[in-house]
Amino acid sequence: MTRTTVPEPNAADKRALITLSVLCEPGNAALADHIAEHGPAAALAGLLAEPDASPLHASIAARTRGRDVGGLADELLALAAACEARAVTRLDAEWPSAVDDLAELYDEADPDTRPPLCLWVRGHQRLDAAVANSVSVVGARCCTPYGRDIATRIAYDLATSDWTTVSGGAYGIDAAAHRGALAANGNTIAVLACGVDRPYPAANANLFDRIAEAGLLISEWPPGAIPQRHRFLTRNRVIAALTRGTVVVEAALRSGARHTARRARELDRPLMIVPGPVTSAASAGVHQLAREPGDTRVITRAAEIIEDLGRIGDDLAPPLRSTDTVRDQLDPLATRLLDAAPSRSTAAPEQIAAQAGVTVTEARRRLPDLAMRGLLDHTDGRYRLAR
Amino acid sequence: MTRTTVPEPNAADKRALITLSVLCEPGNAALADHIAEHGPAAALAGLLAEPDASPLHASIAARTRGRDVGGLADELLALAAACEARAVTRLDAEWPSAVDDLAELYDEADPDTRPPLCLWVRGHQRLDAAVANSVSVVGARCCTPYGRDIATRIAYDLATSDWTTVSGGAYGIDAAAHRGALAANGNTIAVLACGVDRPYPAANANLFDRIAEAGLLISEWPPGAIPQRHRFLTRNRVIAALTRGTVVVEAALRSGARHTARRARELDRPLMIVPGPVTSAASAGVHQLAREPGDTRVITRAAEIIEDLGRIGDDLAPPLRSTDTVRDQLDPLATRLLDAAPSRSTAAPEQIAAQAGVTVTEARRRLPDLAMRGLLDHTDGRYRLAR
Repeated sequence: MTRTTVPEPNAADKRALITLSVLCEPGNAALADHIAEHGPAAALAGLLAEPDASPLHASIAARTRGRDVGGLADELLALAAACEARAVTRLDAEWPSAVDDLAELYDEADPDTRPPLCLWVRGHQRLDAAVANSVSVVGARCCTPYGRDIATRIAYDLATSDWTTVSGGAYGIDAAAHRGALAANGNTIAVLACGVDRPYPAANANLFDRIAEAGLLISEWPPGAIPQRHRFLTRNRVIAALTRGTVVVEAALRSGARHTARRARELDRPLMIVPGPVTSAASAGVHQLAREPGDTRVITRAAEIIEDLGRIGDDLAPPLRSTDTVRDQLDPLATRLLDAAPSRSTAAPEQIAAQAGVTVTEARRRLPDLAMRGLLDHTDGRYRLAR
Repeated sequence: MTRTTVPEPNAADKRALITLSVLCEPGNAALADHIAEHGPAAALAGLLAEPDASPLHASIAARTRGRDVGGLADELLALAAACEARAVTRLDAEWPSAVDDLAELYDEADPDTRPPLCLWVRGHQRLDAAVANSVSVVGARCCTPYGRDIATRIAYDLATSDWTTVSGGAYGIDAAAHRGALAANGNTIAVLACGVDRPYPAANANLFDRIAEAGLLISEWPPGAIPQRHRFLTRNRVIAALTRGTVVVEAALRSGARHTARRARELDRPLMIVPGPVTSAASAGVHQLAREPGDTRVITRAAEIIEDLGRIGDDLAPPLRSTDTVRDQLDPLATRLLDAAPSRSTAAPEQIAAQAGVTVTEARRRLPDLAMRGLLDHTDGRYRLAR
């Protein structure tokens, strides 16, 4: 474990953050403002002391129902220890500062998008290091074999370039992405909408064990939390915020992956899509993303993701090239001459000039150069295309 | 024929434009400048009188080799009349002014991209009217069944909305696009790289006859001209310039369709791509276009093309919707409540509140409204999801 030891005053604040994290659903804006104003420990004490002072106070009182929450943090930490998990807050050295960008996210329809107060982490790596070079690869649960293969391949190739693949641990694209990264002995992180001790869906239990061993399972909800449906939407903002960009592989028109994509956009993180057949319902949501306002990059392979996320000058994807690239760089006159040169028989410069629509003088001047560059064969004053 | 009668002085200029159009390959920048300075008839006379005055003079002298070109225009017009074609120049009322935008096109590698001097037209419609509402749909000759089906479908749907599909008459995507428009009894234009009397490829002869009957065959080259390879590239700028936007359906990395696409971009015409599987070589050039600098719109059907080309406020594509759109418009609290409501059994507000992670007060306040909107069934104070 690489967590630094936290000095005593902060330990009280950390316990307060852990306690507060379970007294509201994650992202609560009023609570975040309250903590920012008073500090965690004082904020908790104040909220418990005056149950009627504000709607926030009242909602926390409704949760605690007068019970003493003094031991709650220790109980949760004990639960975490039992499954070899730890609590990471912004007071810890391994806190991933990228999620703090959520404080700036503005969503009129849902103001409760603030950063997590606590992330429960299961796995051997430092969280901040694991997400430093990370991409989220998300998509439909009901994916096609096409989408599954591409997600696996992309995550595999990202892993071989030391990029971490982050996803949601769901069936379909998410699982394929995690598996691709693991197959390359790479790093992968599943961001869950339930406790890290009971990852959902249960049928992926084997996969989650492998992720906990080689990568990280993380969650805003404490051990024991169940995956209520609304939590998946809440969770998506963390997937988008933790990573340097989001790739959507397949998504139907109504898909949680589109929600994650919008969060990435709202956070000014690059949004990338893997296109598919326009006849495929599993790609319809992906193509729709590309038509929404805001930048969307079309990517077809991991090298292009790395290019789009990399800084200018490094990580440029090797360009896809057909075999004819030398010809692409020719000027129009040379192109005309090459197009006019026969490939089976040979031709005199006059014949090539006539076919190319250029003067004989121009042809005589340029043909020897094209022969020297290996594009034409030259025998007895006549030319033909080189193989 | 709807061409207006041209007064006598212009008739000399028109004959000069026709003559000049065959004394240089189309697009020649020096010739265009010369004509702009002197007017067509005086430009022609001057070029013929001083064969050594400039490289342009010399290249025209090399073409004419001292022969008298006084009867050339009439010869060409007679050839055209024999195949029921006509010559359209900028002196004619049906000249499509959109191609004049080529005068502004700046291509460092190929300055000879100026507007055509003459378009040879075979068909019954006015050229300017036919291209007023037009889209080019271009793509690979070696297309897949996927690309062919999509091109046909898009052109069919464009035709039913009174849009003209312009393409190049080639095998593959081009032919599929023409056929789709014809199948809908719509308008379609083939822009050729050879004479309109001998359209290429010959195997598409039947298709060309149907286009000449229902739409238009047009070319910068006079009747009798053969399709030299460089002419296809020259021709592409006209396809891009004539139309309000260009759609690329399938294109390999090295494909003439990508050239047409770049011309569209250079002319500030919207460039649209139809995505495909990233595993398909026939779509690789299309996806690459989307990654190049400059705007590229992803489109999946004709309605989206019309939306992208239409003015703001009209021609908006009806949004693709999943069946659950009412839910998309709900606020987060309502979404949570719906997600928490059971679909088989019924539940009390307290149970739904606990599952949703909201207070009982909030649940009691909102559940009746959701029932009134038909999203929940309400019986005896208990709720379940409506079907």
